[in-house]
Parts: sequence; structure tokens; C-alpha cells
Amino acid sequence: MRSMIPDYLDGALSDVGADDSGATAAYIPELAAADPDRLGAVFATIDGRVYGAGDIDVEFTIQSISKPFAYALALSDRGFEPVLAKVGVEPSGEAFNEISLEDGTGRPLNPMINAGAMTTHALTGPEGADPARRVERVIDGLSAFAGRRLRVDEATCTSEMQHAHRNLAIAHMLRSHEIFTEDPRGVVEGYLRQCSVLVTARDLAMMAATLANRGVNPLSGRRVVGERVVRQVLSVMATCGMYDAAGDWATQVGIPAKSGVAGGIIGALPGQIGIATFSPRLDMHGNSVRGVSLFERFSSDMGLHVMEVPPAARTVVRSHSVRGSAQDAVRVLRLQGGIRFAGAERFVREVMDSPPTEPRVVVDVSAVYSIDDVSRRMLLELVRRLTLDGRDVYLVDPEVIVPDPDPGEGGRLTVVGTVEEVAVRVDGRGVPSARPEVDA
Amino acid sequence: MRSMIPDYLDGALSDVGADDSGATAAYIPELAAADPDRLGAVFATIDGRVYGAGDIDVEFTIQSISKPFAYALALSDRGFEPVLAKVGVEPSGEAFNEISLEDGTGRPLNPMINAGAMTTHALTGPEGADPARRVERVIDGLSAFAGRRLRVDEATCTSEMQHAHRNLAIAHMLRSHEIFTEDPRGVVEGYLRQCSVLVTARDLAMMAATLANRGVNPLSGRRVVGERVVRQVLSVMATCGMYDAAGDWATQVGIPAKSGVAGGIIGALPGQIGIATFSPRLDMHGNSVRGVSLFERFSSDMGLHVMEVPPAARTVVRSHSVRGSAQDAVRVLRLQGGIRFAGAERFVREVMDSPPTEPRVVVDVSAVYSIDDVSRRMLLELVRRLTLDGRDVYLVDPEVIVPDPDPGEGGRLTVVGTVEEVAVRVDGRGVPSARPEVDA
Amino acid sequence: MRSMIPDYLDGALSDVGADDSGATAAYIPELAAADPDRLGAVFATIDGRVYGAGDIDVEFTIQSISKPFAYALALSDRGFEPVLAKVGVEPSGEAFNEISLEDGTGRPLNPMINAGAMTTHALTGPEGADPARRVERVIDGLSAFAGRRLRVDEATCTSEMQHAHRNLAIAHMLRSHEIFTEDPRGVVEGYLRQCSVLVTARDLAMMAATLANRGVNPLSGRRVVGERVVRQVLSVMATCGMYDAAGDWATQVGIPAKSGVAGGIIGALPGQIGIATFSPRLDMHGNSVRGVSLFERFSSDMGLHVMEVPPAARTVVRSHSVRGSAQDAVRVLRLQGGIRFAGAERFVREVMDSPPTEPRVVVDVSAVYSIDDVSRRMLLELVRRLTLDGRDVYLVDPEVIVPDPDPGEGGRLTVVGTVEEVAVRVDGRGVPSARPEVDA
Amino acid sequence: MRSMIPDYLDGALSDVGADDSGATAAYIPELAAADPDRLGAVFATIDGRVYGAGDIDVEFTIQSISKPFAYALALSDRGFEPVLAKVGVEPSGEAFNEISLEDGTGRPLNPMINAGAMTTHALTGPEGADPARRVERVIDGLSAFAGRRLRVDEATCTSEMQHAHRNLAIAHMLRSHEIFTEDPRGVVEGYLRQCSVLVTARDLAMMAATLANRGVNPLSGRRVVGERVVRQVLSVMATCGMYDAAGDWATQVGIPAKSGVAGGIIGALPGQIGIATFSPRLDMHGNSVRGVSLFERFSSDMGLHVMEVPPAARTVVRSHSVRGSAQDAVRVLRLQGGIRFAGAERFVREVMDSPPTEPRVVVDVSAVYSIDDVSRRMLLELVRRLTLDGRDVYLVDPEVIVPDPDPGEGGRLTVVGTVEEVAVRVDGRGVPSARPEVDA
Repeated sequence: MRSMIPDYLDGALSDVGADDSGATAAYIPELAAADPDRLGAVFATIDGRVYGAGDIDVEFTIQSISKPFAYALALSDRGFEPVLAKVGVEPSGEAFNEISLEDGTGRPLNPMINAGAMTTHALTGPEGADPARRVERVIDGLSAFAGRRLRVDEATCTSEMQHAHRNLAIAHMLRSHEIFTEDPRGVVEGYLRQCSVLVTARDLAMMAATLANRGVNPLSGRRVVGERVVRQVLSVMATCGMYDAAGDWATQVGIPAKSGVAGGIIGALPGQIGIATFSPRLDMHGNSVRGVSLFERFSSDMGLHVMEVPPAARTVVRSHSVRGSAQDAVRVLRLQGGIRFAGAERFVREVMDSPPTEPRVVVDVSAVYSIDDVSRRMLLELVRRLTLDGRDVYLVDPEVIVPDPDPGEGGRLTVVGTVEEVAVRVDGRGVPSARPEVDA
Repeated sequence: MRSMIPDYLDGALSDVGADDSGATAAYIPELAAADPDRLGAVFATIDGRVYGAGDIDVEFTIQSISKPFAYALALSDRGFEPVLAKVGVEPSGEAFNEISLEDGTGRPLNPMINAGAMTTHALTGPEGADPARRVERVIDGLSAFAGRRLRVDEATCTSEMQHAHRNLAIAHMLRSHEIFTEDPRGVVEGYLRQCSVLVTARDLAMMAATLANRGVNPLSGRRVVGERVVRQVLSVMATCGMYDAAGDWATQVGIPAKSGVAGGIIGALPGQIGIATFSPRLDMHGNSVRGVSLFERFSSDMGLHVMEVPPAARTVVRSHSVRGSAQDAVRVLRLQGGIRFAGAERFVREVMDSPPTEPRVVVDVSAVYSIDDVSRRMLLELVRRLTLDGRDVYLVDPEVIVPDPDPGEGGRLTVVGTVEEVAVRVDGRGVPSARPEVDA
Repeated sequence: MRSMIPDYLDGALSDVGADDSGATAAYIPELAAADPDRLGAVFATIDGRVYGAGDIDVEFTIQSISKPFAYALALSDRGFEPVLAKVGVEPSGEAFNEISLEDGTGRPLNPMINAGAMTTHALTGPEGADPARRVERVIDGLSAFAGRRLRVDEATCTSEMQHAHRNLAIAHMLRSHEIFTEDPRGVVEGYLRQCSVLVTARDLAMMAATLANRGVNPLSGRRVVGERVVRQVLSVMATCGMYDAAGDWATQVGIPAKSGVAGGIIGALPGQIGIATFSPRLDMHGNSVRGVSLFERFSSDMGLHVMEVPPAARTVVRSHSVRGSAQDAVRVLRLQGGIRFAGAERFVREVMDSPPTEPRVVVDVSAVYSIDDVSRRMLLELVRRLTLDGRDVYLVDPEVIVPDPDPGEGGRLTVVGTVEEVAVRVDGRGVPSARPEVDA
Repeated sequence: MRSMIPDYLDGALSDVGADDSGATAAYIPELAAADPDRLGAVFATIDGRVYGAGDIDVEFTIQSISKPFAYALALSDRGFEPVLAKVGVEPSGEAFNEISLEDGTGRPLNPMINAGAMTTHALTGPEGADPARRVERVIDGLSAFAGRRLRVDEATCTSEMQHAHRNLAIAHMLRSHEIFTEDPRGVVEGYLRQCSVLVTARDLAMMAATLANRGVNPLSGRRVVGERVVRQVLSVMATCGMYDAAGDWATQVGIPAKSGVAGGIIGALPGQIGIATFSPRLDMHGNSVRGVSLFERFSSDMGLHVMEVPPAARTVVRSHSVRGSAQDAVRVLRLQGGIRFAGAERFVREVMDSPPTEPRVVVDVSAVYSIDDVSRRMLLELVRRLTLDGRDVYLVDPEVIVPDPDPGEGGRLTVVGTVEEVAVRVDGRGVPSARPEVDA
């Protein structure tokens, strides 16, 4: 049975295909000569499924789409503080090749403009590494995001270097502000090599999906960068990714994104999906004309907008039930899904508003697939208070979703694999069949 | 049993309480005279529960925090197009009182700077309304967000008007660009009345929770503005809410927010929570010093950051099971939670990858609490394809979570209240007990 | 015999007359309705002769041409320090209606942009005068520059006020920076009255000639403002008079100038001439198209450029001669023309290089028409040194061109009316006929 | 007999000598190590006399003071159009090392900021010359201005190149805008060599005097650049020479000037004098602290301000007289001094207002030392009209001050060497002795 998503993508491509406005980038022959009619779109889910339509296996140079990934690598390699000291996170409201250095310090406003991207490039790998080593690190890193070995398009790279006057200007300016102390020409060459890495729309979607999947490549299962890094990168993409029309994109599309001058655009919706489009004709901002149309459509058709989040609170409390009676009575509290603050708050509140009167209380997290730290702590505090209130508390956690389940002073918690074990532990008898009481 | 969240808030207030840096706003006596030691924080959940600590019922003027709400009202009253034609959505990277008009058009860059906020004020209510009517509309609207009748602090309002030179300058400038054609003085007066509305931290948290709850006040249950409007407002708060340090806030705190010069800050995390803090001493950006500290802390302690979203995909498929056998066999597909694109994709994919061979297929959405439109359409398309494949398809949807369940041409779908009804409908016999097969 | 200058002017008007590019100012009906074909040009010499061609007696509103004159009045009325504290003298490189306030202080960059001109208007007359009194002072002052009573065009004034949004904006902004503390609306009204004063090209040329003539109206002989004020005004006109193309004008035309939106342009070449042109069609900078052409032509045809100054040094020493012989010998040193530092230096040097050996030395300044202070002091020091060297020194100064001729300690100087008197004073004999020796 | 000007200069140096505020430039060791107490001032007259006090023969690097001279060379070598196409003439209101490129074109705003100065350097010498040849041309040119062979300080030059990051940035930026197509590094190197030329205050004063003397070195008598070039250079110095305080300098000092980071400042007052000061401590604008004080003093003490010009008109008409009577009567009109438009106008006007009735008219220009083109044409036109009016007209012009004395159609003019010749030519008799009639 053929999936419906390819059909949807085919339809979308067909609708935008008629628009042949814009033009391929003209500043180097390699980009100018690109087939302007190429068109492709890919969805990659965070569990690694790829849906595509059109030219999704055609190679083109990654260009500026490398910027958020190199930023992730720099944050990962050097830590937040050294990187933030040299590159800001403020939207510039300006074109990609504007200098946009902070008054006084000369710090580039953000890593998505060229000044910031070259500085970022200089911050990848270990400090003091030679330029070649730095480039190697970046290509390795981009490859890890993509899940396959990527290579550089030497012709484009050579050509870019011949037209690198503006980037050389920016690099010398950064050097003059001591934003980096490396040789400016070496940094520009390395950065242009980074930009000349060849990717397909499929690669880009997988790279985006790696961001959406909190830094773990969905196919290889390999963690490329940490979650905190991913959060930073997505935040910066959200505010600075689409250059001078950042606000338009943030309101209308609402997907953290980045475009490249060869015609690619990526979008990463955290926890959901990585998207890539490819169409070489650019608008006056340097963004792919049909790529922008596709993203607007995807956002609108599929509710993919970071500010469009379903109410999370109601999802976690699956049921409250009591098994057995009197002395044997066991209150079973079942949780489900991904638990974050709002869900934990609701659960804890419900328990506290009507504290269980049964002597034994079971918190069943076997249907929970993730719990964040604040929720874990709230849960354990609840356990502690129930203990102090005279209850015996059990945690059903067969997959160890709650690490280090210590409820702290005065609290006691017994971890078991199934609800059934609770009764057994106490009196050797089977647990009585459930009488559902509350169903959230 | 006392909730642990007030304890958490008490601890947080106590930690930041020692910081007495910054100063109250000095430009009018009413603000300068505020008690600088006031400190309060409130969480309001999207189902209306309020947790607070400190000075949460002290009244102060709403000031710039009125801006996102007035923007919501303008979008709601006039529609998107007329408002966007007059006020942009681009971050200005500048202070609140910068003029920041778009070159050429004179359009204010965004509704969070004064120029944009005054234009927004002029765009509330019906076109051509007189100034008094406009103010009335705004106060009504703010009251609806808060869930109680708010009133204006006349002394502050009078004093603001005496120091309104800069706002008058901006208003005349906007008038000169024909951004509005109303009398500039009338607009400034109305805007300053809007800013002089008295609120408490509790009110602000409820107003923020209304945004987090997609436009419906959690307590009154009243829809104040539409979901599309809320999405726009949150997007703009995310990029333009905290003035010149928008990028810092977006990366570090990651909660769409707005601050006011009287010391309030609100934050709204969509689908989760509304937050408000109150502490009158301001930093050099005009943001409450201790309020900013509290927000940083809340974001970090509780994972409240828009780019921190749990993987949604795994949550929806609860189980696949088969009941009965041979001719009687019923395949039961159970879904749960809030279903968005990524979850629907995963469900549909799983079904298509291993199509059911049983003659009857039941899609059970009784544990689903929300499904967005794209997911609904994917589900119905799946039903259509299953029908074409020769299956009888049933939808268990006792709470009518899937509106208008028409699978389209060639599809057929029978909606029932319980799984048990399916067997009955076919042969009068009870459905055999489940043999779980797949458990996601 | 008819003068050739009118012929020249006729020819110039005829040459530029064909150019009908540009358009009359459109923002108020009174300006839009001006006859676009009007064309006139006037030269006014610093001794009051007027040459004109074309429409030189048609009245139009003075508009921004009032700015340098009001600046002169403010400097004159309040002194330099208070005016410079509120209005800068830096070129803005921007259009007339740009705000261009200095960062931090809010001080307008110069008195030729509207912000500076309104501040200047507020600084005319005595401090604390009411708006009507201020306007009266300005109109009196402009009239004194023109040499006839000027009046306001009430229709234009009323119309300007109805379109004063931008000026009101600027005035409120200035008020917010406390650049002035007067009521902003009153300042704008007064300023627009100032701009609505009716003048002819003939008036403007005479006003410019008054500046060229060091502040004295050539016809009335009345000093309107002091020389120091005139120098300041001309300097500011030279760098800021022609808005965003200040540098082009300074290099190509080189005449301190100012244009008005009704089509006038004035130029004042210090010590030489006042010029005015009138032609209502404006270019994109707001300067009269044909007026600019005429000025370029005048500058180029007639060498009227402030950086084109003939070598002044050779002009002053008219002759050195000796009359009589031996004991009776008189050395006669004759000077001529206007003597400034470079001329005085040359004269003193020549005398010192070949000190007179005759017992009597006559310095004859009867052909000198002006001597500046430094030259006067150098001359007197020379006298002192000649005395110390044993000479009897006489000054022939029938028109008292050298005030207070005290050569200081050790010097002695006898002032006489003619060279002949010297001989008589000594021995009663007539002075021998001159034997010219040096002729410079 | 010792001149009084050195005394004046000694006094001035002594007065400013106490001020030890400011600091030597710190960015390279060679400048930082300069003796901060050095102090010198030089006046050079346009006939080559040099007055100096203090350290006037100490060598230091010319730095930015080379800019106006290199600009003169470029204009001279390439012509106005090609240079103006690449470098503007607008004041930037910014510091010397600001980029200040024109929006859109990337053209540097003026030749006094580094961007413009490097572009100017690239425009010296013949097009396509190699970098070494260009440098040679510039050093030759600077030497011609100074009147002696100048040489480069190699240590400073090497050191400058090591700290040239910002200049390299600017040069690459210019290259990217195709403001020049030369190798950016070569241009920077050449420019820094130009800046490293060693000069003394004496040299600088002579260079300035060459500008004041319309492009002719007063000592060598060699024309270095044309008059039109000098006018352009002086105009640009007047508006852009002193960086961000251009307006202050233009109003207060009023001498076209340029400063260098090694502590030199030059000023050139056209037709009068070249001035140089040397004192290495700089203020925050990068101008020599004591140098600025000295210039303020010179301007104020000696009336050296371009807007302070003596009335020129009265100087030219020396006398009108008649010799002989009746048929023999000769009207002698004597002119003197430098004649420009205003003087010519007055002369012509006087003659026309009271036309001579004598049959013969002599225009005696033997006491005139210069006449500009417009005046020459006015004079010849007057001759033509006198001829048409029936007069025989003679021009006494022994030094051929009036070139090509053709009065045009209908005019006739006889050129003679002395007034006496006129009578001889007509009747062989001597001219009767003069009876002065009018004495202007």
C-alpha cells in the first residue's frame, strides 16, 4: 500500500512547479550553470523514515545551510562560553553578506551571517588546529549529521575562492577586532570548503531530522551533538535563519530553517520532522523561490509551526484505579506519554487534591516514554509526601524511565516491574482485578 | 497536602530576592515611587490552576505588557492583512522607544516597540471609532484576557501624558507617513490609557495562560481571540518581546515573553503554562532585573523552552491487537494522546507497512484527546485505502474527536462508541477477548 | 551704455530655460500651484548694485532659505554658546526633513535641517519671549537683511500647518530631549510662519549680498548682524546648505548657498557678491533644477568659488622710494589695497630684509582700504623696531585706516596726512621729487 | 633685524606647550615610541618664505596627511571623471578608519577616509601600472610638493603592514565592489608605503604652501598639479579633512586642513599661506592635541579663515585721469591688483555709468598682477562697446597680463607698453602730464 505522503509531496511540487520566477546565483559559474528547473522535497521523520518527491538525489553544494551545523559543531567542540564570546545570537535584519558586527566589540551579530559563520568555522575542532584539520572536522561533522560520508565539490570551491573578495574583507575585519587570530585567508578557504560540501535534498532532510531528533541521527542512531547544543542551534535558526525577513518567516512559517544559495532550504521542527527542499532559482533575499513556497505550504497544510503546540497537560494521566479493598486496597496511578512540567503538575495536583486513602499506592510509568528532570523531581517529591502521609509507594518502571528514584529524606519507594508484583510482595496473593475509578 | 510548586516558587523568590540592583523607572513620579522591594511570581496552568508566591495581588500598571494583547485584539478586530500592512513583524534590535520605522513606508518594524504599539492601538475596535470607544474596546479585551474587570490608574495616565513628548513625536511621525490617519494626540492618549491599566501578577499570569491555551481563558472558558491570532502574537513575542536582547532571551529562556516598565514580565509557553513575575527594579534595557532572573531559572529548572519538545511520534500508537479469528477476526488499532502530523505519519506508516489481513479493522480513538486537521485527513485517507483494499473499517470515537469522518470517494467508515459494538453489528456475537499482538 | 551683465544673465536664463525637468513641490496646494515656468536670476554687489534677468520681482515663499538668516539672528540675539549648545554644525549627509539628531544629546546636527531650523527659530529673540514676539523678531530680521519690509503669505502658512505632521514629530522629539522647552506646536507654527515670508529673487540677492558684505545691508548701510556671526553662517552654509549633496556642491560650485522648496536658491560669496535664482521645479533633493544649473554656470563662468582666491600677497606693497638725500633722505614705503596677514608679512619681511638706511621712514597707507588686526599689529611692531633702530617713523594715514597707532614700548610714530608733511615737519623744505626704487 | 613672526610662533608654542593631554598612537611600536614632547610649527608663504619655531626639522611619517596630495596626483594623472567615479566627495561624519562606502555602489564617501585614500592610491600613475611603479609615482609627487626628495621609513612601513588587518578588510571590500581591480594586498602595501614617507614640519608647510599657491611649489617654482585640481583638493579638505568634527573645524578654524596620526597637521589658506604643526599626542579623534590648539589660535589671531575675505571690489580701480585736451584728450583708466569678477564689474560699471567723452581711451593694466577669465572678457567687451561708441581704445599691458586681447566683432584695441606711446602714435607729441580726476 503506497503511502499518502509521497502523493501529497507530488501534489505540492506540481503546484509550485509552474513558478519560474527568480534566478540562479550568478556570482560563480558553477552556481549560475545549475539546472534551474530542478525541484525536490523531502520529509525525514525522527525515526528515520524518508518521504521524497522530485529531485531528491541530485547533488548540489550545501552553502549557507552548513552554517547551523558548523555552529552546532563549534558549540560542541569548544563549549558555549567561548563561542558566545565571539559570535552573538541577535537577529541582524540584514542580508547574509552584511558585515553586521556589534559596535565596540566587533563580534558578529549571529552565526547565520557570513561574518558569524566564518568565525564559527574558526571555532570548530580543537583550539590551535591547523586549517586543514579544521576543515576535516567540519566535513566529518556534517557527514555525521547526514549519516553518510560527504565530499567537497572542488570546482565550486576553487571558483568561490576566486570570488571571495567580500568574505576576505569580512575575515580581515574580524581579524582586526581579534574575533579570531587565525590567518584570515585560511579561515576563508576553510569556510568556502565547508560551503562546497555536496549534499542531496535527502541528505539535508536527514541532517534536519537529526536536529529535530535532539541531536541523534535517526538512521545511524549516533548522537552527533548534545541536546543543549541542538536547542541553541534551533533557537538561532528560528530568529536568524532566513536573513532580512526573519520575522515574516517566524510568524508565517514558524519552522526553524536555513537556506543556501545553491537552492536548498532545510527546516527542523523539534520532536517532529526534518524537511528539505531544493530548487535553484532564488528571490531577492537569496532564498529559493519555490522552496519558500513549499515551506509556507507545509507549515499551513500540516500545522508545522513551533507556536502551534497541542495542550500537553491532559495527556499524561491515564487512569487512577483501585485494586482490592480495605487492607489490601492498592491505588494504581497510571501515567503515559512524554511527561514535562505541565503534565507532571497536573498529575501531582490531582493526587494532592484527592490524596489516596488506600494503604498502598502504585505509580505506574510503564506507558511513559520520556520524563524530564523537573517532572522526575516532582514525582519523587510526591512519593516522599505520600510516604510521610503513611502510604507504601511503588513505582512500576520496567524500562527504567525514572533514573535514580530516590525520594529524599523521609521518603521510601519500591521499584517493581509490574503492578501485579505489588500484591505479591505484600501478601503473596494476586492483585485483585482493577475497578476503574477515575479516567482522565 | 500542600503542593510543591508554591514551595518551589518560594525558594526561587528567596534566591533572587537578595539582588537589589537596578532602579524603578524614573520618568514619572508614579513609577518612581513604586515600592522597589515588591516581588512576586505566578504560574497559571492552561486548565486554570494558579500557583503564586510573594506579591501576587498587588496592583501595578500593565505598561508595555499590554502590547501583545492589544496586538491580538487588533488582529482579531480588523483581520491580518490590514494590521500587517501597517505594522511589521521584524525584530528591531533596538530599545522600546526607538522609532524603528521601515525605510520608505514608515511602517513600524513590529508591534512591541512604541511606534508599533501606538499603531496597533489605533487599529483596535471598528474602523473609524472614536478614541474613547477604542480605549473601551482595549480595556474590555484586556479584561477578557485576565478574566476580571480591569480599570485604569488615572494618576499614572495623567502623569504619562505630561511626559509623552517622545510618544507624541512618534505618533506625529506615523501620521506623517499615513500609517494611521487618526489624530496623533488622541492615539497617544488612548495608548497611554491602555498602558495605565492596573493588573496584578495573578492577572498577568492568567492573561499569559490564555495565550498558552490557544486564546481561551482557562477560568472563564471564554475564547478571547482565535488560534491563528494567538500563534501570530506568540511568534512576535518570541522574536521581538524583549527588545534589544531578543536573541539572548530566545536562546537562553526560550519563552515568548513581554516586559513592562512597572516591573512586570509575562511568559506564555504554548500548550503548557502562563507565567508572570513582578519586581519593579529595572535593568538598562528596561526589563525587571529579578524578573529576568526568575525566568531564566524557570526555563532552566523546568525545561520550559519552545525548542525543547519531547519526541511526539512514539506517543500515539497505543496498541495493535486482533480479536476473534478467521471470518470473525477484528484488527483493533488503538491511538492515544494528542495527534499531530508526526504521530499520524507514524501510525499510517505502520498500518501500511503491515496492512491488516483481517476482514474488519477498528480504529480506536477513544484515548485520543486531540487530533489536528492534517492528521484527521491522513487518518481518513488511510480508511479510504483500507476500504478499497476490501476491509470494513470502524471508528471508535465516543467523544467525537474526529469531526466529519468522511473518508471520501470509495471509502466507507462506520462510527461506533466501543470496540465491542463492532462484533455485535456483524453477527450479534460478542467480540472475542483481545490477543495483543503489537504493543508500541 | 547698457551693462554687459544683464546680457550675460539673459543668456544664462535662455540656456537653462529649455530644461523643464523636475516638478513643483506637491505637499501643499499653494506650492503645487506655482507657475513652474517662472525663471529669474539676480546678482547683487556688495556696494548695492543689482543686476537681474527674468522674473526677479515675483513673490514666492522663502521657505528653507530663511534658515541661515534665522540662524544669524539667533546667534546674534543669544550669543554663540547657547546656540551651539542646542544646534550642531556638522553636515548630516541627509535630506532636509531627516531628523538627524546627535546620539545621546538629541541635538540637531546642524541648523539647515528642519530639526535644527526649528530649534534655531526657538532661539531667536529674547529668552522666554512668547511665540508671536519670536515670529515678529524673525520677520523684522529677515526684512533687515532684505532692506525692505517683508510680509507673510497667510494662505501658505495655514496650509503648511495642516501638513506639518513631520515637523510636529520632530518638534516633539526635540522637546523630549529638552533641546527646547517651549511648546512644540508653538515652535512649529512660528517656524512655518518664518518659512511663509514672501520674497522676490531681488530680495534674496540683497539678503545674500548682506552676508557677502559682512553683515551690512549694501543699500541701507545698516549692520544686521556682526561679522563673526556672518562667518559662522557662511561656514555652515558651505558645509550643510545643499543637503545630501553638500560635497558635490562644495567642490563643483563652491559658493555657500541655501535652497528653498518654493524654487529659490541663494549664494553668498564673501567679499564679492550675493546671488539669487528662482525657478520652482525641483529635483529629487528638493533643489531647484534650473537654479542648480545656473549656479554651476555662474561658478564656472565667473570663477566664483571660495577656494579660488587670487594670490593676495603681491598686492600690498606698492612702492619703496627715497626722496631727498643724505641727512634729508626720506624712505617712503607705500602700501595699497586690503591688507591681511599674508600681505603684511610680505611687507614687513621686505623692510626687514633690507632695512632702510635713511634717517626718516614714511609708511604711507593712504591707498589702503582695509587692514585687519594682525596686520595692524605687525605694522606697529615694525615701526617699534625701526624706532629702536634709530629711525624717525611717520605714518601717512589721512583716512585713519590704522586705528590706535601705538607702536608700544620703545616705539614712536608720527601720524601725518601726506608724505609732503614729513619734510616740512623736519626742515620746512619741500620733499624732493620721488626716485622710485622698488616697484612691487 | 629679526622677524616678528618667529617671535609670535615661539609665543604660541610656549602657550600650548603646557598641555600634555592625549597620547601618541599606540597601534604600532614605531608611533608609540615617538617622543611625545616634540612640538613645532611652520608658516610657509606662497612666495617661499619659511617661518618656524620648535621641532621643525625632525622627521616623522606623513601618514594621513599624504591623502590630499595623493588625491591631487590621482586627479592629475587620471582626470576628474575616472577619480570621481570611484571616490566621492561627501563628508562622512565618521572616523578615519570607518568604511563609509556609498550604499549600492560601494564607492568610498571621500578620499580622506582610508577606503577613499586606498582607492586614490590605486588611481595614481598610469592605469595598469604595477604596484612598485605606483608607489614611485606617489613618492615622486609628494617630493615635488615638498620641494625635496622624500624617502620611506622602512621600519614603520613593515610594522604598519603587520597591523593592516582593517585596511586589508577595507581593500578587499573595495575590490569586491570593483572600486578597483588591483590586488588588494598590493594596494594596501603601496598605501602604507605612501603613509610611511618621512617629512618634517618644514616639508609639510611647503607642501601646504604649494596648495595655497595654486599648485606651484613656491621655492622650486615647479607646477606640481593644475589649479582646478588644487581647488578640488582644498574643497575636499575643507569639508572632510578633520574627520568626525568637520563642521567644528570648518566654522571655528576655517582653514582647509589634514591631520596625520604621527602628530602632523597641515593647513592651506588659498592665496595666502601654508601652515604645519607637529606634536605627537593625539586626541580621541586622532588629531594632534596641541596642533589643533595652534590652528585655532592661528585662525583667530590672524584672521585666517576662508569665510573671512576682505571686500575685493574697491581695490581695482586705481584712477581715472585725462591727459591733454580737446582733440588730443586722452582718458586714462588705471587698474591695479588682482582682478576678479567683483572688481571687473565695478570697473566696467563705473565706465559705463560715466562714459568717457574723450576721443582716445587708455586702459592701463600695468599695475595689475592677475586677471581672471571672466574679468578679461568683461574688459574686452567694454573695449568693444567703447569702439562702437566711437572711441580709439588702447591697452597698456607691458607684461601681457591680458592674453589674446581681441575685443570681438566691431571692437578694436591697440596694445602699447606705456601710456606715453599713445600720444606718440597719434601725433608724435608727448602725452601731456596727467590731471588726476577720479581716484578710487
